[in-house]
Amino acid sequence: MDNRTGLPVVGMVGGGQLARMTHQAAIALGQSLRVLSEKADDSAALVAADVRIGTHTDLAALREFAKGCDAVTFDHEHVPTAHIAALAAEGVKIYPGAEAIVFAQDKQRMRERLAELGAPIPRWRPVTDTSDISDFVAEHGLSWPVVAKAVRGGYDGRGVWMVGGAEAAADLVGTGTPLIVEERVPLRRELAALVARSPFGQVAAYPVVETVQQDGICVEVLAPAPGLSEALAVQAQQLAIDLANALGVVGLLAVELFETEAGIFVNELAMRPHNSGHWTIEGARTSQFEQHLRAVLDYPMGETSLAAPAVVMANVLGGQPGGISIDERLHHLFAEDPGARVHLYGKQVRPGRKIGHVTVCGDDMTTVRARAVRAARWLQEGS
Amino acid sequence: MDNRTGLPVVGMVGGGQLARMTHQAAIALGQSLRVLSEKADDSAALVAADVRIGTHTDLAALREFAKGCDAVTFDHEHVPTAHIAALAAEGVKIYPGAEAIVFAQDKQRMRERLAELGAPIPRWRPVTDTSDISDFVAEHGLSWPVVAKAVRGGYDGRGVWMVGGAEAAADLVGTGTPLIVEERVPLRRELAALVARSPFGQVAAYPVVETVQQDGICVEVLAPAPGLSEALAVQAQQLAIDLANALGVVGLLAVELFETEAGIFVNELAMRPHNSGHWTIEGARTSQFEQHLRAVLDYPMGETSLAAPAVVMANVLGGQPGGISIDERLHHLFAEDPGARVHLYGKQVRPGRKIGHVTVCGDDMTTVRARAVRAARWLQEGS
Repeated sequence: MDNRTGLPVVGMVGGGQLARMTHQAAIALGQSLRVLSEKADDSAALVAADVRIGTHTDLAALREFAKGCDAVTFDHEHVPTAHIAALAAEGVKIYPGAEAIVFAQDKQRMRERLAELGAPIPRWRPVTDTSDISDFVAEHGLSWPVVAKAVRGGYDGRGVWMVGGAEAAADLVGTGTPLIVEERVPLRRELAALVARSPFGQVAAYPVVETVQQDGICVEVLAPAPGLSEALAVQAQQLAIDLANALGVVGLLAVELFETEAGIFVNELAMRPHNSGHWTIEGARTSQFEQHLRAVLDYPMGETSLAAPAVVMANVLGGQPGGISIDERLHHLFAEDPGARVHLYGKQVRPGRKIGHVTVCGDDMTTVRARAVRAARWLQEGS
Repeated sequence: MDNRTGLPVVGMVGGGQLARMTHQAAIALGQSLRVLSEKADDSAALVAADVRIGTHTDLAALREFAKGCDAVTFDHEHVPTAHIAALAAEGVKIYPGAEAIVFAQDKQRMRERLAELGAPIPRWRPVTDTSDISDFVAEHGLSWPVVAKAVRGGYDGRGVWMVGGAEAAADLVGTGTPLIVEERVPLRRELAALVARSPFGQVAAYPVVETVQQDGICVEVLAPAPGLSEALAVQAQQLAIDLANALGVVGLLAVELFETEAGIFVNELAMRPHNSGHWTIEGARTSQFEQHLRAVLDYPMGETSLAAPAVVMANVLGGQPGGISIDERLHHLFAEDPGARVHLYGKQVRPGRKIGHVTVCGDDMTTVRARAVRAARWLQEGS
């Protein structure tokens, strides 16, 4: 509690863009986000007033950081569960808890737990021996390629491999990276269902969105998912709500889904503000960042409804060096589309790195999408 | 220019809630607002990363503050014009300039200039002698009361007096405060027209709003102004655009207006983000805070259209001490109305002090207004 304002202090471990945007939301709630940042020039550290430098694997640093926080939460999923459990045992309100976040850290345990819960998932198995992937293909009568995933640490397409045959499979297993293998689902598209859950147990669900991926990186998010049947939308929301409850998530839970002819399947889980929810800043009545704060503080959840009939978020990836400056690009974009909402993360440009996003709200999905994609391209390529 | 991000640095003189909300907007543009704050616990200083402590009347502090800023602007209108002119002469891009902001600082010069420009204003005169107010009443055949205003320094109802007769007039003049006197306009209601102007000369106008005052303090803003004729709306916008051009304003210009049977009259001018524009954070495609940054940086202006058919902002004033805490009030409000958007300024509660505001967006003005007023009352009174 901040004695001066009488309002709570939330600490976020990690100084990336999620913490940066959470700070913006915290300001509106009368708060100032406390950030544990690795470096003083991390995205959130550049804009927050209460920044502590430290690393998320250092229990002493976490313990010091948590002092005076009403709740501690995360910008990423890399904090060791042992540290989270230790702090919780010492009375720190730290969310999501170790028993929940492990399912966002460890894909094998996530798949096992989802299977237990009867959630729809692709066929899969853990990989321990060189022949496991080939055996899996044979056993289920699958055709190559299949998908191998690192059990831990993958994101934005990293840690995921399309394995084309037995030899490639054996090579991959030979690297020693702990893996799971799963069937390649014949997907129509990808969806995401975002919910927030409070310690009290209230769950709020956002409209289901379509996520468009390129080389394993999310490039666009369409809200609401165009042409999604009401039945499937409700099923996806209910699935996310059930998972949040079953896993005991506190804060946001993003459920990445495959939509196929046979229905929906869970792909990944994330327990923090998520790229598939950036559209909510302008596009929903309550942004995911405020919602996450409300959840970890056990405030009642905010309204999740759309603020416009069609909302599209497009990620801005760092382009090749050279060309006109980012500031000039911004000039051009603002001249070109005065209604595009820009979010830049204060990051140095590196090819392929997410350096910002653009959101467009409007009435017609086709127009809105074209504008968002064009705006992101302006910032990315300067033309 | 921030060498790391390649994006500009804007400095804002003054650490109040306007700087606080401007910082939120700066973050989205990849920036971090530099704030010159009197105290380390001022509203903006609590949440910004780049805070310098200093006072706006200290030229040396202003000069030091401006170093490395791409543009310098203001959270309030109290910086001496001589200081602004001095910095501008030294090459600082400081907006609005001394030649413009003087009209927001000095009501006599403002009235004189508006009269020259032929803008509609109430009948008025400067007050120098004890009998000036009575003479003014007699000369124009007015009935008491008339309105006396301090030439400098008034706001939120301070520095404004309803003068009931010759004796009270003489007493007021006797205090030595430089004054103007003006007729009491038979107003139907108050309106505000908000525009932003860039150095390049682009001007963007927001929809005209109704402002509801109580004891001289703005308590509600209704966007768009209900039932305002298209003709009057266009006239008010055009007036604000013309004034921004004629006065050479860079940044925001808020024109407070009286609506009467005989048309509109200019009441006050403000050259900064303004309370009558707080609704734009959620209610317009571009918030006034981002617009102000875009203007002082000479970026193209953002879209000003409404994001919902009806938007109401209600100010939260500090209530009497005691009762349930602000944090508990927030719980109750969020439970009561999950769609209300809350903005708290990190200020200690003092009776009558603006400590935050609430915005509600929706389809029906009557419903939206009732919700906003109720939400503000929850935060103010805890019931």
